[in-house]
Amino acid sequence: MKPMGPIPPDFAEQRGVLAIAGRAAAEWADAGTPLFVYDPAIVAARVRRFRAAFADVDLHYAIKANPLPALLAAIGPLVDGLDVASAGELDRALAVKPPASISFAGPGKRDDELAAAIAAGATLHCESKGEAARTLAIAGRLGIRPRVAARVNPDVELKGSGMKMGGRPSPFGVDADRVPALVRLLIDGGADWRGFHVYAGSQALSAEAVADTQAATVALAARLAEEVGAAPPLVNLGGGFGIPYFAGDLPLDIDAVGMRLAATLAHRPPILAATRFAIELGRWLVAEAGVYLARVVDRKESGGETFLILDGGLHHQLAASGNFGTVVRRNYPLAVAHRMGEPATETASVVGPLCTPLDRLGDRVALPRAEPGDLVAVFLAGAYGATASPSAFLGHPPAAEIVAAR
Amino acid sequence: MKPMGPIPPDFAEQRGVLAIAGRAAAEWADAGTPLFVYDPAIVAARVRRFRAAFADVDLHYAIKANPLPALLAAIGPLVDGLDVASAGELDRALAVKPPASISFAGPGKRDDELAAAIAAGATLHCESKGEAARTLAIAGRLGIRPRVAARVNPDVELKGSGMKMGGRPSPFGVDADRVPALVRLLIDGGADWRGFHVYAGSQALSAEAVADTQAATVALAARLAEEVGAAPPLVNLGGGFGIPYFAGDLPLDIDAVGMRLAATLAHRPPILAATRFAIELGRWLVAEAGVYLARVVDRKESGGETFLILDGGLHHQLAASGNFGTVVRRNYPLAVAHRMGEPATETASVVGPLCTPLDRLGDRVALPRAEPGDLVAVFLAGAYGATASPSAFLGHPPAAEIVAAR
Repeated sequence: MKPMGPIPPDFAEQRGVLAIAGRAAAEWADAGTPLFVYDPAIVAARVRRFRAAFADVDLHYAIKANPLPALLAAIGPLVDGLDVASAGELDRALAVKPPASISFAGPGKRDDELAAAIAAGATLHCESKGEAARTLAIAGRLGIRPRVAARVNPDVELKGSGMKMGGRPSPFGVDADRVPALVRLLIDGGADWRGFHVYAGSQALSAEAVADTQAATVALAARLAEEVGAAPPLVNLGGGFGIPYFAGDLPLDIDAVGMRLAATLAHRPPILAATRFAIELGRWLVAEAGVYLARVVDRKESGGETFLILDGGLHHQLAASGNFGTVVRRNYPLAVAHRMGEPATETASVVGPLCTPLDRLGDRVALPRAEPGDLVAVFLAGAYGATASPSAFLGHPPAAEIVAAR
Repeated sequence: MKPMGPIPPDFAEQRGVLAIAGRAAAEWADAGTPLFVYDPAIVAARVRRFRAAFADVDLHYAIKANPLPALLAAIGPLVDGLDVASAGELDRALAVKPPASISFAGPGKRDDELAAAIAAGATLHCESKGEAARTLAIAGRLGIRPRVAARVNPDVELKGSGMKMGGRPSPFGVDADRVPALVRLLIDGGADWRGFHVYAGSQALSAEAVADTQAATVALAARLAEEVGAAPPLVNLGGGFGIPYFAGDLPLDIDAVGMRLAATLAHRPPILAATRFAIELGRWLVAEAGVYLARVVDRKESGGETFLILDGGLHHQLAASGNFGTVVRRNYPLAVAHRMGEPATETASVVGPLCTPLDRLGDRVALPRAEPGDLVAVFLAGAYGATASPSAFLGHPPAAEIVAAR
C-alpha cells in the first residue's frame, strides 16, 4: 500500500456521498463521465483568505493554471489582475478584465503576440533585449505607446519550491545585472514602463522560504530601481504558493507569509514608497476547487493485485499520473465518491483506460470497495488538469468541464 | 554539454539544408511554424525492411503511435492489420481498412465502444472476465456474433524494454493461468474466437531480448491453446521494437529477430500449425518518419549560458521535453535546419515558448549557431508527438501536421 495525498479541506470532512458545490457527485456525472467539476465558491474562499492575509497587496490570477472561460468569468471580478502567457490566453483575459489589469509574460512571444498585446493595451513583461527591440519596433509601426514591465531573472531562488525559476541561468526574463540597461532602453524608446516582474519558483509549502524570497525580491526591486533612477509603478513579486498534493505535505501558512511581507513593505526603501505590489497565483487559487470524476469500467485481479479501471485517465489528468513535472510518482488524493469517510477495505491500483502503463492515477491505494459503475474522485484537479494533459492521446473523447453556479 | 540522440539514418547524412521528402525544411515551414512533417516513404521503407526480415508474419500498425488520417491512409494499404485503442481510433481505422483486419485492445472499453466494435465487425481483444460478459451481452442485444481474441498478461516480461507490460500484475489482459477459462467462456457464449494477443513490453533495442520474448510467447500460446483445446487462428506477438532516441542507443537488429522468429515458428508445436502470427508495431514504423520544425523566436544569454527560444515546445512534443514516460531527461536529436552536418560552434539550451521550466527540448546541446528566424528540427517526431502532448497548454495554437506526397 502506498499513501495518498490529503483530500482538500473543502471535501475532507464529508461523509457518505461526495458533494461538490452542494450537489452529489452522481448528479454532476449524470451528464456523462469523465468530467471536471469546479466550484468557484472555493476559489472565492481562497481569495478571501488571501485578502485577509495580505493588506494592500494586489492579487493576480495566472490563468495558465485553468483558463476555462466560465471559470475565468467567475474569478475576474475577484482579483486585481490577470497574468497571461500567450495571445490565446490574452484573448480569454480580455473577455473578463480591462487591458490595463492584464500582463503577458512568456519567453518566446511571437511578433503577432507582441502586436496583439500592444494593440489591446495589456502590459508586456519583457524577457530579453531582443524582445524589447521587437516590442518598440512593433509599437512604432502601430503608433501606440506600449506598456512594458521588465521581467527579472532574480539572483535568488525560492528554496524548497517544486519548480525553481531563479538563481540560475534561465530562459525567463533578464538577468538582474542587465535589467537597468533594459529598462533604460525601454524608457528611452518611448515605452510606458510599468515596473518589474520577478518569479523565483512555484509550489512552495514553506512560509519562511516564500517570505524570504519576497523580502529578497523587494530588496532586488529597490536596488534595480535605484540603478534605473526611476520608481516602478508595480512590482509583481511572483507567486510560488504551493498546495499539499502528496502524503506528508502540509498547507502553506499564508498568514505567516502575509505578516512577513507587511513587515518587509513597512520598511521598504524610499524609492518604492509609491510602488504597488502584486502576488500572482494560479494553482493556489484553483487547484483545490476542482474534482475530476471518472466511472469504474472494470474491476479485475492480476497477480494478486486489484485494479480499478476508469473511463478517465492521464489524457485528462496527466499530472496525477506522475508524468508532468515530477520525478518520483506519488499518489494524488482519491476517493470512491459514494463512500466518503468510510474506512479502506482493500488496496487497489486505479488506472485509466489508455493502453499504456503510464495511465495510473492511483498506485496501490487503500480505498473502500468500488464496483463497475461507481464514481471515483480525483482531487486537486482544478489546476493544470484538462489543459495540461494530452487530450487527443489514443482518441478518447475530451472530458466535460463544468463550473458550478455560485 | 550534454549529448543528443542520433539523427535518424534518413536524415543523418544530409549536408547543408535539411530536406524532408525531397523538399527543404524552409519550404515546408512557409505555411507557418511550428509544424510536423511526416514522410510516408520512410514508413514504406520500414515496412519493406520488416517484410524482408519476417517472411509469412503479418504486420500490424498500432495507430496510437500516430493516428493522423492522411498518414493512416498511406500506411493502411502497406500493412495487414490495424490495432486500435479506442472507439475514436476505430473510426479512423475503418476509414482505411476492412473491419476484419482491425483489432481493438484497451483495458477500459466502455459499453458504447464494445458495441461499436461488434457492430463494425472488428476484433475485440478481451481484457477481463467482466469485459467478456459485457461483450457477450451487447453482442446478444445486437444479434451479431462478436469476433473476440483473448489478451494475455504473459508470465514473461520483455527484458530491457523501455516499458514493461508482462511478468507482473497488470491492468492489461488476463493473467495467463486464467486465459483458458476466459476463452471457453467466450466460445461457449457464441463468440468467434480469433486467438491470442500478448504484449510484453515496448521500446526494446536488444534483438536477443525481443527474440526470447517472441519464443516464450509462442510457447505460451501453444500451452494455452492446448488447455483451451482449440487452435488460435491468430497470435498477435505484440511489438516492442525500439528505435534509438538517445546517445548510445543502437538500432534494433530486426534481421536477427526475424531469423530467430523463423526458427521458432519452424519448430512450433502442432496445435499452432495453422495459426497465423502478427507483429504489432507503432513507434518503429513511424517515429523516424516525422520531423518537428520550430522557428527560433529569441536568442539570449543568462548566467553564461545561451538559450534558443522556439515557437514550439512541449505542448506539441512532450516526450522530447522528457516529461512523458522517462525518468531521466535526455536529449532527442536536434539540428539547425540549414546547417546540417556543420560542426557545432556553441552549446545552447533549446527551449519552447511556454512559461514553465519543463519546456526544454534540448538541454545544453552542441549546435552550429542559430539566430532568430532560423528553423530548428526535432527528429523522431513521427510517433507519440502531436497526439501525446498537451496541445491546449498555455493557449498556443496547435501545430500543423503535413504528410508529404509520395
